Amino acid sequence: MKRIGMLTSGGDCQALNAAMRGVVKGLSENVDELEVYGFLNGYKGLIYGDYRLLTSADFSGILTKGGTILGSSRQPFKQMRVPDANGLDKVEAMKATYHKLNLDCLVILGGNGTQKTANLLREEGLNIIHLPKTIDNDIYGTDVTFGFQSAINIATDCIDCIHTTAASHNRVFIVEVMGHKVGWLTLYAGVAGGADIILLPEIPYDIEKVIAAINKRTKAGKGFTILAVAEGAISKEDAALSKKEYKEKVAKRKYPSVSYEIADRIFKETGVEVRVTVPGHTQRGGSPCPYDRVLCTRLGSAAAKAIMDENYGNMVAMVNGKIKYVPLGDVAGKLKTVDPNDQMIKEAKRIGISFGD
Amino acid sequence: MKRIGMLTSGGDCQALNAAMRGVVKGLSENVDELEVYGFLNGYKGLIYGDYRLLTSADFSGILTKGGTILGSSRQPFKQMRVPDANGLDKVEAMKATYHKLNLDCLVILGGNGTQKTANLLREEGLNIIHLPKTIDNDIYGTDVTFGFQSAINIATDCIDCIHTTAASHNRVFIVEVMGHKVGWLTLYAGVAGGADIILLPEIPYDIEKVIAAINKRTKAGKGFTILAVAEGAISKEDAALSKKEYKEKVAKRKYPSVSYEIADRIFKETGVEVRVTVPGHTQRGGSPCPYDRVLCTRLGSAAAKAIMDENYGNMVAMVNGKIKYVPLGDVAGKLKTVDPNDQMIKEAKRIGISFGD
Amino acid sequence: MKRIGMLTSGGDCQALNAAMRGVVKGLSENVDELEVYGFLNGYKGLIYGDYRLLTSADFSGILTKGGTILGSSRQPFKQMRVPDANGLDKVEAMKATYHKLNLDCLVILGGNGTQKTANLLREEGLNIIHLPKTIDNDIYGTDVTFGFQSAINIATDCIDCIHTTAASHNRVFIVEVMGHKVGWLTLYAGVAGGADIILLPEIPYDIEKVIAAINKRTKAGKGFTILAVAEGAISKEDAALSKKEYKEKVAKRKYPSVSYEIADRIFKETGVEVRVTVPGHTQRGGSPCPYDRVLCTRLGSAAAKAIMDENYGNMVAMVNGKIKYVPLGDVAGKLKTVDPNDQMIKEAKRIGISFGD
Amino acid sequence: MKRIGMLTSGGDCQALNAAMRGVVKGLSENVDELEVYGFLNGYKGLIYGDYRLLTSADFSGILTKGGTILGSSRQPFKQMRVPDANGLDKVEAMKATYHKLNLDCLVILGGNGTQKTANLLREEGLNIIHLPKTIDNDIYGTDVTFGFQSAINIATDCIDCIHTTAASHNRVFIVEVMGHKVGWLTLYAGVAGGADIILLPEIPYDIEKVIAAINKRTKAGKGFTILAVAEGAISKEDAALSKKEYKEKVAKRKYPSVSYEIADRIFKETGVEVRVTVPGHTQRGGSPCPYDRVLCTRLGSAAAKAIMDENYGNMVAMVNGKIKYVPLGDVAGKLKTVDPNDQMIKEAKRIGISFGD
Repeated sequence: MKRIGMLTSGGDCQALNAAMRGVVKGLSENVDELEVYGFLNGYKGLIYGDYRLLTSADFSGILTKGGTILGSSRQPFKQMRVPDANGLDKVEAMKATYHKLNLDCLVILGGNGTQKTANLLREEGLNIIHLPKTIDNDIYGTDVTFGFQSAINIATDCIDCIHTTAASHNRVFIVEVMGHKVGWLTLYAGVAGGADIILLPEIPYDIEKVIAAINKRTKAGKGFTILAVAEGAISKEDAALSKKEYKEKVAKRKYPSVSYEIADRIFKETGVEVRVTVPGHTQRGGSPCPYDRVLCTRLGSAAAKAIMDENYGNMVAMVNGKIKYVPLGDVAGKLKTVDPNDQMIKEAKRIGISFGD
Repeated sequence: MKRIGMLTSGGDCQALNAAMRGVVKGLSENVDELEVYGFLNGYKGLIYGDYRLLTSADFSGILTKGGTILGSSRQPFKQMRVPDANGLDKVEAMKATYHKLNLDCLVILGGNGTQKTANLLREEGLNIIHLPKTIDNDIYGTDVTFGFQSAINIATDCIDCIHTTAASHNRVFIVEVMGHKVGWLTLYAGVAGGADIILLPEIPYDIEKVIAAINKRTKAGKGFTILAVAEGAISKEDAALSKKEYKEKVAKRKYPSVSYEIADRIFKETGVEVRVTVPGHTQRGGSPCPYDRVLCTRLGSAAAKAIMDENYGNMVAMVNGKIKYVPLGDVAGKLKTVDPNDQMIKEAKRIGISFGD
Repeated sequence: MKRIGMLTSGGDCQALNAAMRGVVKGLSENVDELEVYGFLNGYKGLIYGDYRLLTSADFSGILTKGGTILGSSRQPFKQMRVPDANGLDKVEAMKATYHKLNLDCLVILGGNGTQKTANLLREEGLNIIHLPKTIDNDIYGTDVTFGFQSAINIATDCIDCIHTTAASHNRVFIVEVMGHKVGWLTLYAGVAGGADIILLPEIPYDIEKVIAAINKRTKAGKGFTILAVAEGAISKEDAALSKKEYKEKVAKRKYPSVSYEIADRIFKETGVEVRVTVPGHTQRGGSPCPYDRVLCTRLGSAAAKAIMDENYGNMVAMVNGKIKYVPLGDVAGKLKTVDPNDQMIKEAKRIGISFGD
Repeated sequence: MKRIGMLTSGGDCQALNAAMRGVVKGLSENVDELEVYGFLNGYKGLIYGDYRLLTSADFSGILTKGGTILGSSRQPFKQMRVPDANGLDKVEAMKATYHKLNLDCLVILGGNGTQKTANLLREEGLNIIHLPKTIDNDIYGTDVTFGFQSAINIATDCIDCIHTTAASHNRVFIVEVMGHKVGWLTLYAGVAGGADIILLPEIPYDIEKVIAAINKRTKAGKGFTILAVAEGAISKEDAALSKKEYKEKVAKRKYPSVSYEIADRIFKETGVEVRVTVPGHTQRGGSPCPYDRVLCTRLGSAAAKAIMDENYGNMVAMVNGKIKYVPLGDVAGKLKTVDPNDQMIKEAKRIGISFGD
């Protein structure tokens, strides 16, 4: 007999359902009795005891279903120790819910922030298993996170579509890819889509070098240029500002995002028409790709094994192509960003992709 | 022996290549000798004699290729009678190129503006065949234009992706669909994607009714609402302005497009988070869908027949499911907009879709 | 207050759920009280009173879901008047279920055979509305059936994939497309996919002409040839046989389908390697394409209107682009096959596609 | 100045062009003068001196293009030392072509067989770089081969489509996945597609256990079962035969492949209708997925670096997520098959997938 709780927290992504299906299938095939408590809308459901008792039928047929059947919400780690409007201590409330339901463990699917709270709950004595979810691929200690490949596919489709229209009209196009702090998604989608210029949060750009790269293409007779720009791309000037100065500058910016600002600069300096495309939240949506479905089925199945083995306190991760259990204490709070000297950056530069640096 | 000229003009779209392939295959299978002059970048190539002599090999393997192998550009009809910077009369220049190359006819692929110029050239004595291209589906005299279905597919994919993320987060989402003056694309993509609210240029919206529709869903326990909004969606107040007043208002608008303005209003009045997605030019790009490939192969083949029959001066159109030759003089300058009493609007309203009116 | 029954019968296809959603949304938005009885597995559920009382929640989120939430089965029209193993008269049993539940009407989604039974029930005094479903597009009296465009997309994807591998290896490839008696699906997918040879049930082929078409391509330096072959493609010799003789011949055939037989003949006569691909039931599966979703939403909404107007006994059809109510008595038992002189066949031949005739 | 030869050999797959583009872009951006000799149709072109001198324009825009611009053919390793019909020694002929063109090196894209010949040429003194291509993922010494993920996507799409139709009709479906000797593709597509039973060449199946797995599902109220079956799936009885006995048995088999034989057995023992789908060569075709495009761009760029460094005799591989140069002598002739005790097999079994063993 096992009683497990489950929740999905933070920005949603593809394959959350696939991962939960893996956990529940793994358990229901191997455990005599199973009770699954699905907490609604992330940690909120755990805090306020808002849950549904789920049966294995709830997890049937959801392998390919986008989103999360449990709902999600963002509950910043920093707020976890701050009492809510009614004075409720959220951490104590979560522990109370856990103990009241007499859970064997809590399976938590989420990204970096979620992981920090998961680790906190572990420190508070709860049995925790974390599954690394995020389109950003920025979780430390795993080769890859789920949602990442599905998001790459959508952003790349977008660049593919832009390619044909760009070629027909001799224009500059900017595709704005999700990622405020981390550029993995932009890097992979940019390389996969054949972008000419890729701007990442981790490699501040020099607008003159961006323009030089465009002009180089024009001189070579290539009438169009495609830029894959991360939401968090930043110029060298802005990167030199203090956090406060930068925030003030952004607040005053008349453009809805940095892509529009870059577009404006390029147009002013080259006279070439620039178009901006913002696929936005589509990058989190739709059916998970086969890669993510395999990944999540494996992670979920391995989580089920951990529960049967009472092996708690870990993130179930992919390490060098093998499933590993990585202690949450070793990874929580760490971020995996793009190293400007990463092998893949060098490979991209070698074939002529500019990073504006 | 046939000598034909060909050009693609206006905003590019899917299946331009498929249509040209149909024309050239139809001719090269049936005509002893064939010379195809491909004018580059729309009417510009015809004006300045910028062309390539193409062989049937150029048209092999392009059925599925997006964009146009000839390039395109926008040459407004109104500018056609205005001499260029060097004093060149563009219409006379086009006629001169045509006669110099001793063409049997000119096959012109384009939308409404392109069609007007095509009709002008016909009036000037050239042999013209027009193929109705546009993602807007606003060409009068044909059931459908090519590019339309492919664009629907892309915009619908976008709404599909948004659906899963919207459902996970209980948010309001706006997907901005192409179409400044005409709402067919938004209407079809909105219905296909299961949007809850659809705002079209032809049906000015009342923001209070939009908000009421959102609130109705919230009360019914549906946590999210999706709006498909045409680029040219317009409020009742703005629709009441004179053209001049409206232009001035838009110029002052701090939002990059009407979707952002609507998002802001909804957020202010409901307190619900609103996210905007702008697929933009992706809607013109990528490989044509099978529907458009069949349509274009048929239109192209029928254009080849018209050339062999020396049957000129027409748009090759689909009328009640059959290919017809429609005199350019009967259709040029007319626009097919969405009638607010269209059968499909009524059908959509019947199932609960709000148009904000 | 309305009490309606609903069933899906025959081979399943895409957009059945989308159509049912349209009906139920249309009614639940406009009718005070609504009871929906969903009969399981086609007419079987109606015969044996096997149903579920459905709520509007059952129809939420199924716009994009393939298959049918009601299940389906094939119940041949000819068997309807034959008592079952227990001596039950099926027609009387269906009437009894209908009257026992005191239904206002029965909404039946299905193809030709289904339509004949629907018409029989109408003749027996039941209120019937029929929605034209089939990937074969062979229902008389409507421009198009739902499922058709989705199936075209899948079969065309298949041909697209084959194209790249065929071109790399200089081989002949056969893609076997669904359709035992009717060739619309093969014709449209063949043209959309750029097949070189298309073999349909309605146009018996001469194998020598098929081989000549292959050799013509080889001589023209085109190393590969792609055939789109309907399941029911038939040679001129076989078409000349009596039905009985043909059945006997097929029974003795060592190949699982005609495609393998054609492949063998081509290999023997040309020495070129031939590969056969059988996408099979994938052509009925997956999420409906946007075209079918729009079509079904419209048909469903119009069916809801008919129910509110108590306008029964019709197929809800698309006629010249407009929704029409077509009396079942006018169309039941008729089949819409490909006319060998159809405009589209001529267009296809004009661009060099061989039909082997 | 660099003079390189390039060829693609064996069964084609996705992303061959993407890989070649990576090599050529990497060189043309960094080397003063570059000559690229593209040998046509695999080793055949090298043997008979059949090549085209390619420019960087040939490699522009081919990132997303399926197939290979060089053509391919199968030239079994065993035949390489056997003189051709005219008595020509093929290995000597290849060396002669290489030396005559004064090549710096030869970039060879191919699978296991290709790799063995590549290693032979290395032993004969040529400068060789090998890129690991195959949808089978069976090359020893690399995490993954290119083509594999694209093929998974296609096979999974196929299973996805079958899922909806299977669920509607309560049938058993078999999807036959490519792979005569190695089951990676079937394993990954099976898990990604949610197959219930997966049969691999490496794990001989007991038909009674397969049937038991189907019956277990039926008892659990799940009306349908999906099998992903590798082309080379083999029963325990057949696996016990000698190679000769097995060949004779297969030659007598009346079914075109093992899937049909399994279908027949299941039908006879359960009475449930079974349908077989054979996606076949579609699994090698179409545009490469973003995963493969990134992989090939990286491999290609790293091959360019190796050429500049005159670092020859290696396969450019992905090892634990990093690009590595793996000596051909260490890996040629080795096959990476599915270990029946592989972690992923255990994970799959844990969630209830049967392997029939």
